[in-house]
Amino acid sequence: MPIKTPSDTPGVTAGAATSLAGHPRYTSDADARAAAATDRSGYIPPTLPDGVIRARSVDDVVEALRLAHAHAIPVVPRGAGTGLAGGASAHAGEVVVDLSGMNRILAIDPVEMTAVVEPGVLNAEVNAAAAEYGLFYAPDPASTAICSIGGNIATNAGGMWCAKYGVTRESVLGLRVVLADGRILRTGRATIKGVTGYDLNALFIGSEGTLGVVVEATLRLRPRPVRTETVAAYFPDIETAGRAASAITAARIQPSILELMDGPTLEAVDEAEGTCHRELGGAFLLAQTDGYGAHLELDEIARAISPYATSTHRAASAEEAEALVKARRDAIPALERLGRVSIGDIAVPRNRLAEAFAGLEDISAQTGVRIFSVAHAADGNLHPMIVVEPHESITDRPAKAALGDMFHLAQRLGGTLTGEHGVGLLKREWVGEELGETSRAVQQAIKAALDPSGILNPAKAI
Amino acid sequence: MPIKTPSDTPGVTAGAATSLAGHPRYTSDADARAAAATDRSGYIPPTLPDGVIRARSVDDVVEALRLAHAHAIPVVPRGAGTGLAGGASAHAGEVVVDLSGMNRILAIDPVEMTAVVEPGVLNAEVNAAAAEYGLFYAPDPASTAICSIGGNIATNAGGMWCAKYGVTRESVLGLRVVLADGRILRTGRATIKGVTGYDLNALFIGSEGTLGVVVEATLRLRPRPVRTETVAAYFPDIETAGRAASAITAARIQPSILELMDGPTLEAVDEAEGTCHRELGGAFLLAQTDGYGAHLELDEIARAISPYATSTHRAASAEEAEALVKARRDAIPALERLGRVSIGDIAVPRNRLAEAFAGLEDISAQTGVRIFSVAHAADGNLHPMIVVEPHESITDRPAKAALGDMFHLAQRLGGTLTGEHGVGLLKREWVGEELGETSRAVQQAIKAALDPSGILNPAKAI
Repeated sequence: MPIKTPSDTPGVTAGAATSLAGHPRYTSDADARAAAATDRSGYIPPTLPDGVIRARSVDDVVEALRLAHAHAIPVVPRGAGTGLAGGASAHAGEVVVDLSGMNRILAIDPVEMTAVVEPGVLNAEVNAAAAEYGLFYAPDPASTAICSIGGNIATNAGGMWCAKYGVTRESVLGLRVVLADGRILRTGRATIKGVTGYDLNALFIGSEGTLGVVVEATLRLRPRPVRTETVAAYFPDIETAGRAASAITAARIQPSILELMDGPTLEAVDEAEGTCHRELGGAFLLAQTDGYGAHLELDEIARAISPYATSTHRAASAEEAEALVKARRDAIPALERLGRVSIGDIAVPRNRLAEAFAGLEDISAQTGVRIFSVAHAADGNLHPMIVVEPHESITDRPAKAALGDMFHLAQRLGGTLTGEHGVGLLKREWVGEELGETSRAVQQAIKAALDPSGILNPAKAI
Repeated sequence: MPIKTPSDTPGVTAGAATSLAGHPRYTSDADARAAAATDRSGYIPPTLPDGVIRARSVDDVVEALRLAHAHAIPVVPRGAGTGLAGGASAHAGEVVVDLSGMNRILAIDPVEMTAVVEPGVLNAEVNAAAAEYGLFYAPDPASTAICSIGGNIATNAGGMWCAKYGVTRESVLGLRVVLADGRILRTGRATIKGVTGYDLNALFIGSEGTLGVVVEATLRLRPRPVRTETVAAYFPDIETAGRAASAITAARIQPSILELMDGPTLEAVDEAEGTCHRELGGAFLLAQTDGYGAHLELDEIARAISPYATSTHRAASAEEAEALVKARRDAIPALERLGRVSIGDIAVPRNRLAEAFAGLEDISAQTGVRIFSVAHAADGNLHPMIVVEPHESITDRPAKAALGDMFHLAQRLGGTLTGEHGVGLLKREWVGEELGETSRAVQQAIKAALDPSGILNPAKAI
């Protein structure tokens, strides 16, 4: 994927370099700094971080934070750098703690169905290891092949399967976290249930590296479903498809996957893959059910959507199912051929999906920004994608204006700024508006209690 | 249920009474204070609280906390008073804020499947209201008929169904909370997913009234299963039953209910109800599956337990199923006929259930305390129950020693002090041992950030 290297800004690196250069894993190499400056949000930082600490062990992270704490140097934790909100972007005056080298699966317990992993291990690697025991790890971001568990935890990542199995928070039993001052904290426990003390586990999950650096996670694995059934359907337009998705919710079926794609996205996929989805309709819906009654549940889904669909295709084999799922997985790579992609992430109440799609069309018409939309429909989580030129930052106008309009659309429909990607740097200006004064004050009080000198990923998230 | 009224302690009420007596809902009536002093933990407080504020509205709670904050008066939030860890017990120098009068269901949205409720509404009332729309609220503590949603949230309560549907945290989308200084905080959101800011929702759930007073909750409802299947089985002893439960986990079936009862508990049920469970075996297992494939899943469960069971009874009708479930629901009322019951709440990794039961038998033998055990087996959550004389407090020896031994047993097996009842007052001395120094320091820093003068439910939980 083409991520443009931001231009270097020499001469601003002295402070951090002097204080942290003594760390055995520190480098101020320009390429390393450039590689650690950006994520996949489409945001181009104006400067580079001062240096990078390539952690290989918990001790490396402890030592990095002790030094950073002593010298009040801002630190940006970084996993695979696939974030979509600028949460891992780093600037002059900051040092990146790169955890991608801490990438071991430490243990898998097939009886308790847990895995203990380092933060740099990739999501797909956990799933591959779990599969050997007939298990899977449920959170499956579209970036599964390239995103790290640490980043998934930082953003409380979701994915397609979380319709049924919940987001990262529901699949993390415990964490080992290095705090701002270098102390090591354990959160959670090895058991499924437990209520001793506050739920620090949930507090750290989704905190975008602003409260501590996760150095180990105990993950909950689940049995691979005995049976999976897949259906795809086409609709005249995305509003109609949104109504069909709401009809599934109203019919009270719990799909394991329920995905929507709009016409422009289908066109992009067709162009990239040589398929012909767009001929079949102006919007695409993919539904999967799993478990012992999967076939019966899929019957219900087919019944619920039939009044809306122009055609319905039930997979007769695993290969056919895989081809239908592939259409959805191809969406983002297809758009990345067109330019720099910024993936929006609003969520709305599930029965307001059609209104959300209509609103996105209005925003596109008003701002002149072309918007490609996919959605995790069972959660009401939309990913409206904006494609800008490779040299543009998503924070340039008019893309920025469209982002703001999307947030206000979500807010108007009773929804939220971000369903699963996090706030990062990109959406920070709207956080106060969503949370309100008291919530933000409480969040900042917690941040101050855990990171009094404010060195952890400053100016991100809250 | 016979809860002994603690003896009054006149003469210590002046401080709080003077400061909060101006609240329009304040009473210092001795009966009201006695009724608000205890919960169902078996702990008898040595003194009574100074007064009770019977809140009827959010404004009542705001005003109570503004006054308490201004005068540094400790406040004990109270719902239905059915807690099992002393979390709602109140003492001289404290004022109880009684939320049982805030008991309205404010809204049910059958399309989004949510309910907005006040904290004093009973768990069973929410379920009755949801049932009218074909929905249910998943957390179902044994006390469902008498416990309040506010208390469920304070303890992150579980129940039988949480084997499949998760605990309270997984069923609360948002909260409205009055903070220690009277400010109103909203946590969470109306959508299924959302990651704007820290997960304050999860932080407040299970915080046992030490961070704020919940005055409204948006609950997630779920569709009632289309089909439910039930099986019960008997075993020679509880260790064998524990192994059978672990075999279900190992067979990777997800029951909606998986409950164990030991021989002494079966005897107590038989005595109270005129049934004859004990003749059929020394331990009882109840399993339910639900959903479209429930019958197929129950086949697998029956197969998994058959090597261990002496007899197996599959319910042929809803009435038969209800009779089997009733045996489990009868356990606590049956023991309450024998004396003052204190319900333990340890949790262990699921494949260590049999060891946990064996350990409890050892504790009983060593301390001379008779222990009756039931368990939510799918979560590894055991409820070893101690029965003391009606005039005894559970904090008297040797019951107290047995409680400590139970915690150390759980710890030895990789488990936790409390699965779903909370720490309250009763288990506080072991919290540090379980959490460790750093975790406790972090928890106390968060408490100090949200309640700097420490007026909210002091000396509880952490």
